[in-house]
Amino acid sequence: MTIDFKVFKGSKDGSIVESKTSKPDLTGDQVLVKVSCSGLCGTDEHYRHADMVLGHEGMGVVEATGPAVRNLQKGDRVGWGYEHDSCGRCENCLKGNETYCPERQMYGYANLDQGSFASRAVWREAFLFKIPDALSDESAAPLMCGGATVFNALHMYNVLPTARVGIIGIGGLGHLAIQFAAKMGCDVVVFSGTDSKKEEALALGANEFHATKGVAELTGIKPVDHLLVTTSFQPDWATYLPVLAAGATIYPLSVAEGNFSIPYMPLISNGWRVQGMIVASRYVQNRMLAFAALHGIKPMVQKFPMTVQGITDGLQTLKDGNMRYRGVLVPQEA
Amino acid sequence: MTIDFKVFKGSKDGSIVESKTSKPDLTGDQVLVKVSCSGLCGTDEHYRHADMVLGHEGMGVVEATGPAVRNLQKGDRVGWGYEHDSCGRCENCLKGNETYCPERQMYGYANLDQGSFASRAVWREAFLFKIPDALSDESAAPLMCGGATVFNALHMYNVLPTARVGIIGIGGLGHLAIQFAAKMGCDVVVFSGTDSKKEEALALGANEFHATKGVAELTGIKPVDHLLVTTSFQPDWATYLPVLAAGATIYPLSVAEGNFSIPYMPLISNGWRVQGMIVASRYVQNRMLAFAALHGIKPMVQKFPMTVQGITDGLQTLKDGNMRYRGVLVPQEA
Repeated sequence: MTIDFKVFKGSKDGSIVESKTSKPDLTGDQVLVKVSCSGLCGTDEHYRHADMVLGHEGMGVVEATGPAVRNLQKGDRVGWGYEHDSCGRCENCLKGNETYCPERQMYGYANLDQGSFASRAVWREAFLFKIPDALSDESAAPLMCGGATVFNALHMYNVLPTARVGIIGIGGLGHLAIQFAAKMGCDVVVFSGTDSKKEEALALGANEFHATKGVAELTGIKPVDHLLVTTSFQPDWATYLPVLAAGATIYPLSVAEGNFSIPYMPLISNGWRVQGMIVASRYVQNRMLAFAALHGIKPMVQKFPMTVQGITDGLQTLKDGNMRYRGVLVPQEA
Repeated sequence: MTIDFKVFKGSKDGSIVESKTSKPDLTGDQVLVKVSCSGLCGTDEHYRHADMVLGHEGMGVVEATGPAVRNLQKGDRVGWGYEHDSCGRCENCLKGNETYCPERQMYGYANLDQGSFASRAVWREAFLFKIPDALSDESAAPLMCGGATVFNALHMYNVLPTARVGIIGIGGLGHLAIQFAAKMGCDVVVFSGTDSKKEEALALGANEFHATKGVAELTGIKPVDHLLVTTSFQPDWATYLPVLAAGATIYPLSVAEGNFSIPYMPLISNGWRVQGMIVASRYVQNRMLAFAALHGIKPMVQKFPMTVQGITDGLQTLKDGNMRYRGVLVPQEA
């Protein structure tokens, strides 16, 4: 017996292709998840030219469980994100940093035959997350990668509730970062190209908003202790140096090419820190979900049908910078 | 009444100039220190073309005290370093990070009429350090800036005794970093251009040594958790990326021009941290001195007379890369 399901893949010319994936019967702690919806992330756009199933902000319902599954059962609402598996034995795994395991199985690098742009998927129970009742499927999906990434920055590197937190960019990540940081008690200041998202940024919890287009240097602004960069490209660092407090930390969360480059002596003489990081490890992901549920943190989503056309439209909307603020794909049949 | 003393200054053409400085009578918590010796640091070479008194690794004996001095008295052995004063009220000062005070008075920027290349100097008691008996004057001087800087990296940013610590460069800073890290219990691995300093590095406490000249990528080496860069220039980062463990921290301690630049995606996907920092704040400086005294940490010094010729020779030795490993200037008269 095999488990067959529909998937949507990238392709050489960037067009979205509907296909089928077959998996053998469930073994070990494998879980069959029926997809209820999926977030649409910049990384999906990145991989649309690859022959792989797209999507890594998965939400769904447990449909069947393998023989070694211990905690999940049929009908449970679960989500998954960027990481599918890790070795469980290396130092990073043992420290709870399994996102840095040398054998980590990540979106784009492993399990290319399945993803969240699909009707179903089979994953290890160990890398599925139970979703709190307070979060709807559509709200939970964008948290699985976008939310987890910004929460990770705010949770893992000593951001105190009394901190002043700068957020560059209001998109899939940024609009969640504003909410998380505000609910953590931080003084949130948002930097965005123009004033077009100002009202929404303030409504989401920002205390201050600064338009940056055409500004060479941001002067006269109270410095921030932490600066999350959520744009899809690296900013011009010279613009932001005047808003960094002594000892401030920069979190470059963009996926970008080339070098990270920042003026050397200011970095040294101000004691700044640059903190590289990726998505959250599992215990942080669970804390993020609980925090979002407790505080009513809710992605603003734009829905598209999970069809070739819907995915194509969603990716185009994202590429054009018109997504407000995270795309969510919804399957069209039971 | 004035206090007059001899000083050695830089000058436009880089030659060392002997001169006199006059200070008014001591007020407040000012202390008159008779210099017993001074370390010679790369920054002094940097400022030899400036019209200012050189030297910032000062050692001496208290000769007189101002009316508000509370803890020091005549005859006490004291040292001073890069910072002379700070506001005492700003958040950085209140946090014990007075090295980042916006009003900090630092070598090269304030009090240009005096330094440690001199017969005497007048400083605030608050920025003088009592030297433990176990440290000789010549051993303490190089600790005041060089030692303090590397100790700061090892002390302030969560370097555990179980960590593997990489040190690039064996010079004034590097040879002290090896000793501090080894005495902290760390697994110390040293990177240097050639094998010429290998035996000394191992004798100072390194467990491993790697020559890097002509090596494009350091492969096959167990990765380090922390990497201190103590060379006078930035290394080619591509060489060192393979020796960085996931989550590793880089401490760029060089004084360098231009940008700090590192491949972007490896920084992100390995969760690396870049930690800018300068010299130690006062409580760290005191801990450093106590630690050095407790563990017999001792700079290897090369002595020069504190004369125009001696300073010139010392700076040349440093510039030529021949200092083993820290120059110390010794006054020639009582």
